[in-house]
Amino acid sequence: MSVDVFSAHKAEAPFQLRPEKAAIIVVDMINEFCKPGGKMVLPGYEKLVSPQLAVIDNAREHDMPIFWVHDVHRKNMRREREFLKRSPHGEEGSWGTEIISDLKAREDDIHIIKRRYSSFYQTDLNLTLKDMRIEQVIVFGVVTNICVRSTVADAFFEGYEILVPQDCCAATGPREQESSLYDIATHFGVVCNSNDIVDALKSGSPINNIIND
Amino acid sequence: MSVDVFSAHKAEAPFQLRPEKAAIIVVDMINEFCKPGGKMVLPGYEKLVSPQLAVIDNAREHDMPIFWVHDVHRKNMRREREFLKRSPHGEEGSWGTEIISDLKAREDDIHIIKRRYSSFYQTDLNLTLKDMRIEQVIVFGVVTNICVRSTVADAFFEGYEILVPQDCCAATGPREQESSLYDIATHFGVVCNSNDIVDALKSGSPINNIIND
Amino acid sequence: MSVDVFSAHKAEAPFQLRPEKAAIIVVDMINEFCKPGGKMVLPGYEKLVSPQLAVIDNAREHDMPIFWVHDVHRKNMRREREFLKRSPHGEEGSWGTEIISDLKAREDDIHIIKRRYSSFYQTDLNLTLKDMRIEQVIVFGVVTNICVRSTVADAFFEGYEILVPQDCCAATGPREQESSLYDIATHFGVVCNSNDIVDALKSGSPINNIIND
Amino acid sequence: MSVDVFSAHKAEAPFQLRPEKAAIIVVDMINEFCKPGGKMVLPGYEKLVSPQLAVIDNAREHDMPIFWVHDVHRKNMRREREFLKRSPHGEEGSWGTEIISDLKAREDDIHIIKRRYSSFYQTDLNLTLKDMRIEQVIVFGVVTNICVRSTVADAFFEGYEILVPQDCCAATGPREQESSLYDIATHFGVVCNSNDIVDALKSGSPINNIIND
Repeated sequence: MSVDVFSAHKAEAPFQLRPEKAAIIVVDMINEFCKPGGKMVLPGYEKLVSPQLAVIDNAREHDMPIFWVHDVHRKNMRREREFLKRSPHGEEGSWGTEIISDLKAREDDIHIIKRRYSSFYQTDLNLTLKDMRIEQVIVFGVVTNICVRSTVADAFFEGYEILVPQDCCAATGPREQESSLYDIATHFGVVCNSNDIVDALKSGSPINNIIND
Repeated sequence: MSVDVFSAHKAEAPFQLRPEKAAIIVVDMINEFCKPGGKMVLPGYEKLVSPQLAVIDNAREHDMPIFWVHDVHRKNMRREREFLKRSPHGEEGSWGTEIISDLKAREDDIHIIKRRYSSFYQTDLNLTLKDMRIEQVIVFGVVTNICVRSTVADAFFEGYEILVPQDCCAATGPREQESSLYDIATHFGVVCNSNDIVDALKSGSPINNIIND
Repeated sequence: MSVDVFSAHKAEAPFQLRPEKAAIIVVDMINEFCKPGGKMVLPGYEKLVSPQLAVIDNAREHDMPIFWVHDVHRKNMRREREFLKRSPHGEEGSWGTEIISDLKAREDDIHIIKRRYSSFYQTDLNLTLKDMRIEQVIVFGVVTNICVRSTVADAFFEGYEILVPQDCCAATGPREQESSLYDIATHFGVVCNSNDIVDALKSGSPINNIIND
Repeated sequence: MSVDVFSAHKAEAPFQLRPEKAAIIVVDMINEFCKPGGKMVLPGYEKLVSPQLAVIDNAREHDMPIFWVHDVHRKNMRREREFLKRSPHGEEGSWGTEIISDLKAREDDIHIIKRRYSSFYQTDLNLTLKDMRIEQVIVFGVVTNICVRSTVADAFFEGYEILVPQDCCAATGPREQESSLYDIATHFGVVCNSNDIVDALKSGSPINNIIND
């Protein structure tokens, strides 16, 4: 795939996954955004489950910590500023804020409560990653072009190496999926497929950016 | 223009510009990204100049502060982490970090030095906006899909009302321009044209989101 | 009380409490730091309860939100960096992290979980204060010279007007109590007594800094 | 020196200085706070110069980077919120914001502009430390109880190991000097003397906290 002249000014090296320094960040795979009855459902979450589980299960075998990010909004705010732009959703204490059961999140995994699109914005994600000695993050979930992408941007600013398996992410539409993955691949990290990560965990092979020239 | 089912869950109100509470944030209109000889040139910056000047000149008449954001990187870092992903650019002290002369930036405008894509990340932009009593920001510049968009995202998290004039922004390619403006319009703020802002400043008319159903 | 020559360079105005813009922030009044059996007990918390309740009860009558800050540390971190300096305490899920029952915290008050001394550091306190439209904070709890003071410092940087009732705070020792209150009074906000706040809520009277020349 | 019962709950290990991972942060040794004619002078800065130079000169021999923090305030803010509490000072472009010439700061050292008491608050200090691969910071300057202490607190939250040479710091008064150093020693880092650092750089000897039981 060809890269535009501006984006082409990049440094590029294959991603060498180091499981003892890596964590999984699963963004917003909550009932509210996935399941019938949710207040803001993205159609077709089902196709994400199998590749996500493949990455998660293999990561668990290498003792990589799993961070589950939940979009949760406090009740009874005088002026919830996200809701000036988006419909209310993710009310604290509601079914909607739970991780979909398909993914078998464990209570003793690490759960992060976020209030805005980015998993880093006014949460303890960054300090917890550092208390876990993490330097590499594998980020996926919904939606690619908003919460996943905002999380990836902040992870990059904070200096993490970033891997985004594209088949574990869904956007609000096909153009947005392609465009956000393109921006991530050229400016923030490495975009790959879930089986590249599984292979890397099994064999130690480096992972190439899917969009790299 | 039609909006996908997920993005459609939004609150929408016309933007009522209040010049005494508003500021312009011009992102990265520096030689390095615009002018021949720059290290990372986006072709075609010329077409941005006239609409940008229209907004800036009218804003000046209303005493709105102009914030000029410069992407500047310190020299001699042991491991400049942005340069692990992007080619070196914006060296401090170089011609490349100056605002293009076409825009007639003034020394007594407000100049912000940033180190990463977002104009908010580890800069004094947020506190300076607050010391200027600003609640609304008009954001534009280059490139739409990276530095403009990252700045818009952080401005939204911080609670500012956001206006993005599309003809004052350029992306790395047409798909990225459309996709980032779509995401901004549906999740972060109001996308409009430069003349909507000029009209609003002259007549007080509200500004409608260009992408709104 | 006399102020040193450096600290004397200050602006000083009586504090005009506006209940509709004000919130209470109660810092770390948890079992761990107060009650027998806690892992890090400050002797003599009992004398704080009555003045704290006076402020809290009067604030509730004016519909001021109460923010209860809990110092809570995640379990099983690979290297919990606070515990490189301080003994382990505040384990998540433990009795120690609950607000002491004397203060009658309500579940539908606002509860903030913090990981470090400052109530602002990587928590959602700041965005929640803003979603509640708060501009003034009354801060107290334990210990004056560490967690209260760190919270006050960050509140000042973020632009809140700050009131600290001295009889609602306890330090690790008398010199530390006096010294931190002096620094707060000269550099961060207004130090007063609990009954000044009660009076202000009843009569609208301004509150004077206890240390002001 | 005896430590109170609350503060005594600490972990304590001698500080092993690693010059290739360490930096010096000199806080606010600017004309405004030191020299006759400054707007907010702390009497007696002269006694700091010799121990500060001893640390700085030895650090330079080990290629440790020197970070000079300047307190600088923008002009013409509509409401400079620090000046609601403190008299105006540190005007950008003024003589007052320059490092005192006694310390021989170099232009190619790292200079950080801060707007509030903490050297970390909305500055690029943290990302620059990380781009320099720094994990340990030696912090000193003026005034111990406000800007030095705020910087130390944020450095601790960010996970740096901290060393504060007491004879390189001055507070607004003797009680404040003792109290802030006590808090730093018990809750944030290691307090020592300048010659302990010089010795450690020469011999590799560990540095003990001056206040440790």
